[in-house]
Amino acid sequence: MTTINKNYLKLQGNYLFAEVARRVRAYKEENPKANVISLGIGDVTRPLAPAVIEALHKAVDEMADAATFRGYGPEQGYAFLREAIVNTIYKPRKAEVAADEIFVSDGAKSDCGNLQEIFGTDNTIAITDPVYPVYLDTNVMAGRTGFFDEATGMFDKVVYMPCTAENDFLPQIPQKHVDIIYLCCPNNPTGTTLSRVQLKAWVDYAKKEKAIILYDAAYAYYITEEDVPHTIFEIEGARDVAIEFRSFSKTAGFTGMRCGYTVVPKTVFGMTPDGTKKSLNEMWNRRHTTKFNGTAYIIQRAAEAVLTEKGQQQIKETIAYYMNNAKVIRQGLSDMGMKYYGGVNAPYIWLRTPEGMSSWEFFDKLLHEADIVGTPGSGFGPSGEGYFRLTAFGDAKATVEAVERMKTRLKL
Amino acid sequence: MTTINKNYLKLQGNYLFAEVARRVRAYKEENPKANVISLGIGDVTRPLAPAVIEALHKAVDEMADAATFRGYGPEQGYAFLREAIVNTIYKPRKAEVAADEIFVSDGAKSDCGNLQEIFGTDNTIAITDPVYPVYLDTNVMAGRTGFFDEATGMFDKVVYMPCTAENDFLPQIPQKHVDIIYLCCPNNPTGTTLSRVQLKAWVDYAKKEKAIILYDAAYAYYITEEDVPHTIFEIEGARDVAIEFRSFSKTAGFTGMRCGYTVVPKTVFGMTPDGTKKSLNEMWNRRHTTKFNGTAYIIQRAAEAVLTEKGQQQIKETIAYYMNNAKVIRQGLSDMGMKYYGGVNAPYIWLRTPEGMSSWEFFDKLLHEADIVGTPGSGFGPSGEGYFRLTAFGDAKATVEAVERMKTRLKL
Repeated sequence: MTTINKNYLKLQGNYLFAEVARRVRAYKEENPKANVISLGIGDVTRPLAPAVIEALHKAVDEMADAATFRGYGPEQGYAFLREAIVNTIYKPRKAEVAADEIFVSDGAKSDCGNLQEIFGTDNTIAITDPVYPVYLDTNVMAGRTGFFDEATGMFDKVVYMPCTAENDFLPQIPQKHVDIIYLCCPNNPTGTTLSRVQLKAWVDYAKKEKAIILYDAAYAYYITEEDVPHTIFEIEGARDVAIEFRSFSKTAGFTGMRCGYTVVPKTVFGMTPDGTKKSLNEMWNRRHTTKFNGTAYIIQRAAEAVLTEKGQQQIKETIAYYMNNAKVIRQGLSDMGMKYYGGVNAPYIWLRTPEGMSSWEFFDKLLHEADIVGTPGSGFGPSGEGYFRLTAFGDAKATVEAVERMKTRLKL
Repeated sequence: MTTINKNYLKLQGNYLFAEVARRVRAYKEENPKANVISLGIGDVTRPLAPAVIEALHKAVDEMADAATFRGYGPEQGYAFLREAIVNTIYKPRKAEVAADEIFVSDGAKSDCGNLQEIFGTDNTIAITDPVYPVYLDTNVMAGRTGFFDEATGMFDKVVYMPCTAENDFLPQIPQKHVDIIYLCCPNNPTGTTLSRVQLKAWVDYAKKEKAIILYDAAYAYYITEEDVPHTIFEIEGARDVAIEFRSFSKTAGFTGMRCGYTVVPKTVFGMTPDGTKKSLNEMWNRRHTTKFNGTAYIIQRAAEAVLTEKGQQQIKETIAYYMNNAKVIRQGLSDMGMKYYGGVNAPYIWLRTPEGMSSWEFFDKLLHEADIVGTPGSGFGPSGEGYFRLTAFGDAKATVEAVERMKTRLKL
């Protein structure tokens, strides 16, 4: 009989957001009149920017005429978009990235999940704890994580870097050698960041250990403080050790549009079994051209519109709207005397559950007492236990209402 | 140093269409005035159907308003599309497929490439020869193919099923056990098909051997003859052994839109190391929800429009346009006294190269003497040597012109 990929059997439980959705569905079935407000999954709620809508209509019309119709495009993305990314995202930060180092995709989740496949299964990965589950789960599927230890809630071949209030949510550089390091900054789920100096220490470590940093900068547009790098390629030496994931999802409300990109510098290499260097740009190009067929033309035109002057102004207004929600949530939590982190350079607020409750206990409490959905911290890793994530992506009025409910209805 | 996935080193040469593009680019640089007509890569040229354009504009407007904006959708696809697929594609053929057995994606190429990962690397795969390169290359990347033998042009752990004029392009059922069988019907590149009885024999073999058939039906809408199944689920027993790939690309001109889907019946299973059965529907669902984040909402609305009565009528007119091109090409080749196959139930014509020329020799001859691009058969596998693929996806006038040039300019 055809055998399955046995690594899948090591995957733990359901995908976090699926379990959240299941509990919310069950609650709504039991309480059909409940007006549930979600500050849970990190999905945006504001409409697309007018410049994007305009570009979409125009591109759709092009598809209606044989003279301007577009079929297969380059798997790596159209030149117009790759060049706009260079000019709008990287050049202003003096980060050296060339258009042919950019691979446009259907989103950063796909790229974060698929990129690991160009590496050997013998590499040791390091992840922060808590962490965006996709990094870990996709390495489990590939057989890179060893066995799961029920007692610790950890895989035995993975190096976990705890990020808690005790260390200011700063991942500590491992004492032992690792090959692949996942960093997300601004961080999902904790909403915290690394400074330039802190990120430089990681680049230096990777150079010394000949390791690769997989850097997820999906939330870069939410940075408000000066000392936080917007891209790892602002850091000297990063081009030799880093690959960067970027997304239009949180940047421009593209969660339902599906467009992201990954930067693989031509100066970053892996090693073949005989010890020779192999370009990771070439490898990812091969993967991308063989298992992917490009992002829809109309979606790429929409992404291009995001990168125009008008588009940039419009998306920044929307981001300001969300960051005002973050401020409202932070103020509310302060008023309640709760401990929380993040929400300054990221749309996530990471709060300490009160009275030593577990993350899922607090999830159920918040849902049942206040009709509010959040995300249990333990879903992001063992060190997320006792924490809880709220997001700033909701409607402004609903966010104010949610904070009011927390203040008045939660029995603490 | 971080190691690479060493299986990538076994990949042979460049991806076929990249090499074709390279040679065409070089020819155009040398001959800037040449009016090159492509009957090569299988890309469509007709604009999207009016019903699709209308649906796109409507969906774009929804994205402009917070009340109707859509963020993340279900990774598996919206219910409206999955149900439309059941009702328009499967029910009329009395093929039992449920909406939750359908996984909407960004295209059949991605699905054909990614699906193999839910299987163990110890399975033996069988592919037709010639074959759509993605089936083989993605198994090479996974380490399922053993080593490449330069002498035969084959991987030692793959079972190749030659399809040539000598056996009417019918893959022969293997004499030995195989675990996974890739079938494409109507076939890319040969343009030939299996009858119901012939496909039933494959389903029976798979049941007997407890094997899985991965059935690529991307060209089903091009079938004109009565006895050719439009889906493998028309065949009794297929629900126990088959997974089907489908695409809107050639069906509705979506090559630049990126939408396809895969049907994984809940009745098809793989085996775990301890010998228990594992649902492949569950496994693919886990893969799809972890490494993919759904197809864009507006694209799914466009796909839904394809499946309406009006959409169906409009796309069938476009398919008739392409199939008339196929007729023109077939007539021209007949007039030239050349041997060819296909073009009746598929948009591909598979011709025998004249005078024992190799496929690439004929490619260069056609390009240099007649300014026409086709696809060398040998790019699809060793048994494709001595054959050549022409496609019917061109502009009607350009196709007539191309046939005229072949007749008058080719020095045979």
